[in-house]
Amino acid sequence: MTANEESLRALREQVARTTVDIIHSVGSRNRLAKEIGRVKEAESIPGLDDRVEGALVATVLKECDSSGVSREAGLKVLNVLLAESKRVQGLDQPVDTDSPSDWFAKALAMERSGRRVIRLDVGEPDFSPPRAVVDAVVSALSTSKTHYTSARGIPELVEALRHYLAHRRAYDAKAEELAVTTGGRFAVYASIASVVKEGESALVVDPSWPAYKQALRHIGAKPIVLHTTLDGGWEPSADAIVDAVRPNTRALILSYPNNPTGKVVSPATFRGLVDVANDLGLTVISDEAYADYAFAPSASVLGSAARRFVMTGTFSKTWSMTGFRVGYAVSNKETIDRMLRLVSLMLTSVPEFVQYGAIKALESGEEAAANSQTMRRRIELVGKELGKDSSLELYKPEGAMYAFPRSKAIGFDSRRFADELLAKKAVSVIPGTAFGEYNQSFRISLCQPESVLSEGLALIREVAA
Amino acid sequence: MTANEESLRALREQVARTTVDIIHSVGSRNRLAKEIGRVKEAESIPGLDDRVEGALVATVLKECDSSGVSREAGLKVLNVLLAESKRVQGLDQPVDTDSPSDWFAKALAMERSGRRVIRLDVGEPDFSPPRAVVDAVVSALSTSKTHYTSARGIPELVEALRHYLAHRRAYDAKAEELAVTTGGRFAVYASIASVVKEGESALVVDPSWPAYKQALRHIGAKPIVLHTTLDGGWEPSADAIVDAVRPNTRALILSYPNNPTGKVVSPATFRGLVDVANDLGLTVISDEAYADYAFAPSASVLGSAARRFVMTGTFSKTWSMTGFRVGYAVSNKETIDRMLRLVSLMLTSVPEFVQYGAIKALESGEEAAANSQTMRRRIELVGKELGKDSSLELYKPEGAMYAFPRSKAIGFDSRRFADELLAKKAVSVIPGTAFGEYNQSFRISLCQPESVLSEGLALIREVAA
Repeated sequence: MTANEESLRALREQVARTTVDIIHSVGSRNRLAKEIGRVKEAESIPGLDDRVEGALVATVLKECDSSGVSREAGLKVLNVLLAESKRVQGLDQPVDTDSPSDWFAKALAMERSGRRVIRLDVGEPDFSPPRAVVDAVVSALSTSKTHYTSARGIPELVEALRHYLAHRRAYDAKAEELAVTTGGRFAVYASIASVVKEGESALVVDPSWPAYKQALRHIGAKPIVLHTTLDGGWEPSADAIVDAVRPNTRALILSYPNNPTGKVVSPATFRGLVDVANDLGLTVISDEAYADYAFAPSASVLGSAARRFVMTGTFSKTWSMTGFRVGYAVSNKETIDRMLRLVSLMLTSVPEFVQYGAIKALESGEEAAANSQTMRRRIELVGKELGKDSSLELYKPEGAMYAFPRSKAIGFDSRRFADELLAKKAVSVIPGTAFGEYNQSFRISLCQPESVLSEGLALIREVAA
Repeated sequence: MTANEESLRALREQVARTTVDIIHSVGSRNRLAKEIGRVKEAESIPGLDDRVEGALVATVLKECDSSGVSREAGLKVLNVLLAESKRVQGLDQPVDTDSPSDWFAKALAMERSGRRVIRLDVGEPDFSPPRAVVDAVVSALSTSKTHYTSARGIPELVEALRHYLAHRRAYDAKAEELAVTTGGRFAVYASIASVVKEGESALVVDPSWPAYKQALRHIGAKPIVLHTTLDGGWEPSADAIVDAVRPNTRALILSYPNNPTGKVVSPATFRGLVDVANDLGLTVISDEAYADYAFAPSASVLGSAARRFVMTGTFSKTWSMTGFRVGYAVSNKETIDRMLRLVSLMLTSVPEFVQYGAIKALESGEEAAANSQTMRRRIELVGKELGKDSSLELYKPEGAMYAFPRSKAIGFDSRRFADELLAKKAVSVIPGTAFGEYNQSFRISLCQPESVLSEGLALIREVAA
């Protein structure tokens, strides 16, 4: 054994010992956490303390810098430590138990049993997709457009998207700043996974589509919730962002027009949010799925002052193409490249013939406008119908395809209400708890003709009274 | 402040101190690792030592058990520590730089420049999809089958899959044991992500389709490579598995008929592999994309003795439906449920109208048989053509759609060869390095008519000579 081999062996032993020490310290920390759990229980203090956790993030990052540990590694280790604390305190229960799809399934089960259900649950337009889209898909199928494409999408669709964004959103995107995705859902998932890393965090404005928080948790990142209220007009506050942000916060996730509230923030408010994101070095992830259902002055992250952003779009809502599974994302080249690596790893591409249909959708401005007008009338209808109800309060939607009324009843339970409404009246809605801490509210999807919607609203008022 | 509040404060301070100590220890460990890197460099010892790493896994798990730390947490921490070691030793370069898609792109770029390229790179059958499939998709589109479906797939397709598996694979699957996926690629990704966790590992038999290792790395798991050789008839050895397995190894990933070698292991060999997986408590993930291109007695994990398994299948190869992006997985209910959560999070479902096409594919036995016979003839052809070449050695494929010859030339470099072949003869192949440490080999895809294939093989022989 040479002197070097000898020292290699000795060094490796030290490494193994240090590794054991680290695990041992995790064990000590777990015992402390368990003790904290006991004290909290005795004092009836709620389980988690976001302030304490936020302070630890700062402490860890500081120690990383002075100890020669990468911040990425430090945050991952902290993530494990926090999860262990929850585990030993018995707080590691799954949080995604209240998903909208559970409620879709209940309604579907009742339909399968032969009963007619007024489906005001799922956010799926009842319009037909444009004829030109269907024809283009059929024609592509008949001409052997049945092959793998590049992960970004066929050049013709990328070009059509560029043209669309330039003319409809006054935004000039380079091809390398675009990606066609398997639905808006994958655009959202891939955006979050490409911007936020394990052990980091992102701000989510509640009430929100559950996918944002689910995606964050899936990648081992923490959703920091900005709770907005009906009384506050669902208005997010820049101060609350400054207050909630942590040194490991990477993104601010926005979605206006909003699912489930129908809120549209004013361009001035949007500018304020972008400014604070810039100040804090956050990427703005803006899910603009409902951009074509905005009935008040609204803003896009495209063309905004956002220094770093991802905009996600979908063909599902504007052109009623949910079952085509095609969406897109706009960002800088680096982020798009990261998203495309996920596409290549998991999906290869969107079906080639579907992409030819998507090109035609982008040219279907008339259908988009007609769908938008129809939804606007339904929003008027729901505002009028629920406005005269003394048992419900409603922020009148300014966009999207939903209403999110709040019951005035004391002790109202949105899950119990949704169950009762389905059982007694065969009307399906989604409880507010699916979108955050909104047990007093429920979501009504407006994806039914006015007559059906009216019928459903009348039944809702009966049960809510 | 009550006594309890006081003790809470004190406990939290201790937690913060312990957290800082842990990060500090990571820093100390980094300095040791850096020193190891220096010694290794002085002695010209290769960078990574799998034995040392494997021993650390065992040490950590033991310490977890005695310190009251969950094994999951311990393995995640170790994962971070190992990544930090690589970082400080300068060994944290990306490993996926040699992807087949880079080579597809080179060939495509040359085609776009107007030159005719003999494409023997991509694994995409040149056959037409069955007429009945295209007709069914067209008909579904025309009858508004353009909606979200359940994550598992439409009941009619799930039922058709059950029927297919029962009749073609003699395997009775319950509906809850099946999932329709967005291509075989997502089936593979979701299988791996549902069976193997961050900080764990899985065995991969090389040469292999790069997706397995990429998926493992993406989720923070380690691929443990079982290197097989042409001289050993690409035969994987059960002993090598026993030798390579670690206490954190969860899965054995198999794929026969194999991409890129065309190897089909015998039913006896397959049984041996399953037995050793059972003995070691491993889940067998069997990617059976090429099951219908097997020209020697072969076995499936379906109906095998495997106690835990996932079988992934695809419509892409058998029926030439690459551009439809539809595949499936068979496993136990728990694993399928985990996979469906990924589908729900990222994708919602496969396009509804595509699923109607998939039903018809399962009924298209004649087309499948014809495609299989065509591929069999091409395999015969490549065996004959390359068999008479003295500069190349070939294990004659027993299945799949590829040949993976090895050059006898000393100093052969598969990347340089592929570049030269493309530049000089406009024939595209994939270098062996894309599939593992096989720089002496390259992959020829047989997805061209015999005349084109012959032409390409002749040109390959010219350059290889």
